[in-house]
Amino acid sequence: MKYCYALDIGGTSIKYSRFNEKGQLVRKWELMTNRADNGKYILSDIVTTLMADMDMANIEKSDILGVGVGVPGTVIDDAIVSVAPNLGWTDFPVKYKLRALLGGIPVYVINDANAAALGEYTNAAQHAVKSVVFITLGTGVGGGIIIDGNVITGYQGAGGEIGHLHVEDRETEKCGCGNTGCLEQYSSATGLVRITKKLLDKDSRMESSLHQISNLTAKDVFDACKNEDIIASKAVEILGSYLGKACAMIACAVDPELFVIGGGLSNAGTIVTQVVEYYYRKYAYPGCRQTTFQLAALGNDAGIYGAAYLVLRNAGLK
Amino acid sequence: MKYCYALDIGGTSIKYSRFNEKGQLVRKWELMTNRADNGKYILSDIVTTLMADMDMANIEKSDILGVGVGVPGTVIDDAIVSVAPNLGWTDFPVKYKLRALLGGIPVYVINDANAAALGEYTNAAQHAVKSVVFITLGTGVGGGIIIDGNVITGYQGAGGEIGHLHVEDRETEKCGCGNTGCLEQYSSATGLVRITKKLLDKDSRMESSLHQISNLTAKDVFDACKNEDIIASKAVEILGSYLGKACAMIACAVDPELFVIGGGLSNAGTIVTQVVEYYYRKYAYPGCRQTTFQLAALGNDAGIYGAAYLVLRNAGLK
Repeated sequence: MKYCYALDIGGTSIKYSRFNEKGQLVRKWELMTNRADNGKYILSDIVTTLMADMDMANIEKSDILGVGVGVPGTVIDDAIVSVAPNLGWTDFPVKYKLRALLGGIPVYVINDANAAALGEYTNAAQHAVKSVVFITLGTGVGGGIIIDGNVITGYQGAGGEIGHLHVEDRETEKCGCGNTGCLEQYSSATGLVRITKKLLDKDSRMESSLHQISNLTAKDVFDACKNEDIIASKAVEILGSYLGKACAMIACAVDPELFVIGGGLSNAGTIVTQVVEYYYRKYAYPGCRQTTFQLAALGNDAGIYGAAYLVLRNAGLK
Repeated sequence: MKYCYALDIGGTSIKYSRFNEKGQLVRKWELMTNRADNGKYILSDIVTTLMADMDMANIEKSDILGVGVGVPGTVIDDAIVSVAPNLGWTDFPVKYKLRALLGGIPVYVINDANAAALGEYTNAAQHAVKSVVFITLGTGVGGGIIIDGNVITGYQGAGGEIGHLHVEDRETEKCGCGNTGCLEQYSSATGLVRITKKLLDKDSRMESSLHQISNLTAKDVFDACKNEDIIASKAVEILGSYLGKACAMIACAVDPELFVIGGGLSNAGTIVTQVVEYYYRKYAYPGCRQTTFQLAALGNDAGIYGAAYLVLRNAGLK
């Protein structure tokens, strides 16, 4: 039996996994990310734990098909991380360095949102779905576009940067990227809290359970929305209207078979997909108005499934 | 020597061409489109003229690698035209019917804007460009997205339907597609004339050479713009601002290496690309703000070059 390793590097911890050649998850573990000195110890830490796993499981290096690595940053040519702020990496040739440290085992590097998109795609592909746009609603809004198993990474690594679609001309506050009116300013956890606070300020005399909460979170807003709180419902409506509009824009470009919504906010459930679908159908080009929306299925494991798929596909096994 | 045929079917005429296996254009001719009885004679007309060409040039059927067909409509699975209003076709399995009529010669069907995009891509690819978004500014706004030589056709054939990107919330007039605020309402020839007329009505006392023109065309507006007419300049600025914004949205999805602007309006020259680039850089995600814009190079021949590429690629020659 041959194996591959699939990693999901985060700013706090690194998720490790070993899959067999059939794409089945065999082992999964997690270790802290050592971010000291601009992340210079991360690759050697990875080598240490992978070597230990091979030792433990009695696996020869020649039985490892490759290592797939999801990285929270911009990846160029499946190889070089041009910038990964949370790790301290800049123009870091991860593919070549890690491959050398591992004595020539093939290494494939992918942006973490794209890895998660690829993971969700492998799940949808079991039902013969061929193209997926994955959108992750967390602190920010990320995404990945998969067509026939290929990630649209983009010339400058900005493929699937859905969070920075321009969706509002009248916005005055700046997005983290420096532009104004980005999707992320409305449809992320941060965005939802920002909108809600604005609504609470504006309609300060309107009854809302949220007036009492000091450290408002996106979960508070969704919980209140489920209890039919007017302000919370309005905020969720705004989140959904911008996200639906953005999905309609994306569909005019790539017309996917399926939209998959994941990330922390998707834990609120179908309340999210329903409002997004409603506005998608309002803004979508008639030729692709019936596209399906689904909640993500793999949760935090999407990234490792995607990274594993990347290795197996390159090995000709997918 | 082997050959392929490349066709570009329009509502008025059909462009025919024969390329050799090296991708060189050998012969080109044009015949009227017979639209009678919902276009039922179109395929047999095609067979007649292709057979005559083979006869004339002494080419055996076995020397024809295939026939690439660009169609002004929605194409599903490179085979079926679900709708082509100008030809009268609905759910028409062009690939299978034409292949049968041609005695088994392979047939590849592609939307005409996608064919033109592919043609411009082959041109750009000579300079090692790997991904192109092609936008054609004519009566409407069409487009095609090419990544590594593959057209993003979309699940429902709506890939590259750039003209129907939602770019304005405040629009009250309807687009031909039934939505409001589509790019096509501002950045097509029709859109430019519409905007200009609105500006002329609104600013009826502002000096403009355009007040005197009764049947205003997009060319009139560009000509006046070159002569520094204020109303015309404002209209072109509006066209460019929406198109630049739309390109920024597209880049957040697929981040192409190059945008190519073609179609009738592109005859106005760099005045178009300059204004589009200006607004693109304003709205684009910083990670892909420097993307290059170019005017289309192949003019009306883009479609046949794309259709020929499709055949040669499927034959393993590209």
